[in-house]
Amino acid sequence: MKIIIVGATGTMGKFLVKALENEHDIIKAASKDTDIDVDITSPESIENMFKQIGSFDALISTAGPTFVGPWSKLNNETFRNGVEGKMMGQINLVLIGQKYINPKGSFSLITGALTHEPQVNFANASAANGAVEGFVRAAAIELENGVRINAISPTVIENSPQYFPYFPGEIPTTMRQLEFMFRKSVFGKVTGHVIKP
Amino acid sequence: MKIIIVGATGTMGKFLVKALENEHDIIKAASKDTDIDVDITSPESIENMFKQIGSFDALISTAGPTFVGPWSKLNNETFRNGVEGKMMGQINLVLIGQKYINPKGSFSLITGALTHEPQVNFANASAANGAVEGFVRAAAIELENGVRINAISPTVIENSPQYFPYFPGEIPTTMRQLEFMFRKSVFGKVTGHVIKP
Ligand SMILES: NC(=O)c1ccc[n+]([C@@H]2O[C@H](COP(=O)([O-])OP(=O)(O)OC[C@H]3O[C@@H](n4cnc5c(N)ncnc54)[C@H](OP(=O)(O)O)[C@@H]3O)[C@@H](O)[C@H]2O)c1
Ligand SMILES: NC(=O)c1ccc[n+]([C@@H]2O[C@H](COP(=O)([O-])OP(=O)(O)OC[C@H]3O[C@@H](n4cnc5c(N)ncnc54)[C@H](OP(=O)(O)O)[C@@H]3O)[C@@H](O)[C@H]2O)c1
Repeated sequence: MKIIIVGATGTMGKFLVKALENEHDIIKAASKDTDIDVDITSPESIENMFKQIGSFDALISTAGPTFVGPWSKLNNETFRNGVEGKMMGQINLVLIGQKYINPKGSFSLITGALTHEPQVNFANASAANGAVEGFVRAAAIELENGVRINAISPTVIENSPQYFPYFPGEIPTTMRQLEFMFRKSVFGKVTGHVIKP
Repeated sequence: MKIIIVGATGTMGKFLVKALENEHDIIKAASKDTDIDVDITSPESIENMFKQIGSFDALISTAGPTFVGPWSKLNNETFRNGVEGKMMGQINLVLIGQKYINPKGSFSLITGALTHEPQVNFANASAANGAVEGFVRAAAIELENGVRINAISPTVIENSPQYFPYFPGEIPTTMRQLEFMFRKSVFGKVTGHVIKP
């Protein structure tokens, strides 16, 4: 399978590349320093990425920038980090990528437990996650040619201990769980699901 | 109670004005032809509305424009209808309005069943609703001075029969149910809830 991983240089992305690269043809994409440079906040850059890659079977996204910080700093400007990044960035990967994906291909987008389990400092991510999950359910009934779409929604992950203090009481998702959540989306048959650990 | 209704000239708004105006001081806001003109897609216009009104006890929003139309027409441009309108419009009503609202006041934002029950043509609303609901849960743990926030999530409403063909199998929300959902949010004590019929 030809699988694009957008966010391939990040904590999740690096792990998923290692987990899948022996079995599949992996194309790594991120802002910089990898196979393909892409800025998901720019529809032109996304279109350019797909033009370079051509057809593919699955897209995994672990790229989802948001504003993290005190409520007092949250305003129309800072909110745009999540709107242009995690929300429209990932939504545009689908709206544009559907023209390039093979029949029966799949999109697997990243969200997170913050959709339903808010934490202080993360309102922008809660909103972006909610948008992506609403979009995923709607896109699942619209996409053609058997193309599927799911959201992957882990709690704080095992390999991000720097975030643990901000997620009191949240049991971390192991990297094996994270990998298997993406495996369910890419190699299983469900569509329109929000996959949880 | 001094209650602002943004979207006061619409199908929901007109009904809520009638239902509440005998008991409360209602300030009607919409794009045009009412007490106060506001364009919720503009933070400046929102700030201007609150400056004119001064302090208040509750804000009800039934203003939430989105793109409705075929999936083939959904792209980064058309998606902005819901992003700037129903999503950021309502989020900015809160981010800006929190500076003007009285202690123990409340924000009641409109979403809808499309968050979890997608229908063809409405992916933009599903995403905007999901964003607003994620934001509401997060804002509930951040807002100060006892200020509350909830989302009101009806199915297609009784007074919008023109939409019935687009919502096969969806049992319409009666206007009495809609009114009482808003009453629960404004006069009750819950916060961070998505109130359903
Ligand atoms: N870490 C957790 O505990 C956790 C838990 C639940 C959900 N999440 C969500 O999962 C996602 C990934 O988390 P992570 O910890 O793996 O993040 P990360 O280590 O910061 O990695 C992010 C990846 O996305 C890329 N990226 C960022 N902005 C981009 C843009 N505009 N265009 C293209 N690529 C871009 C980065 O590339 P560059 O470095 O080149 O920019 C990097 O490869 C985030 O949305 C986060 O909210 C994380
Ligand atoms: N109707 C339903 O069956 C139903 C069911 C579930 C959810 N909803 C949601 O509920 C909301 C309201 O529905 P509705 O049927 O009452 O809509 P509506 O009749 O079209 O009324 C919308 C109201 O919002 C105002 N408005 C629109 N854009 C605005 C802007 N940029 N700035 C300020 N005000 C603006 C309109 O004023 P102007 O006319 O002056 O622009 C009008 O007062 C929508 O978000 C819809 O998605 C509707």
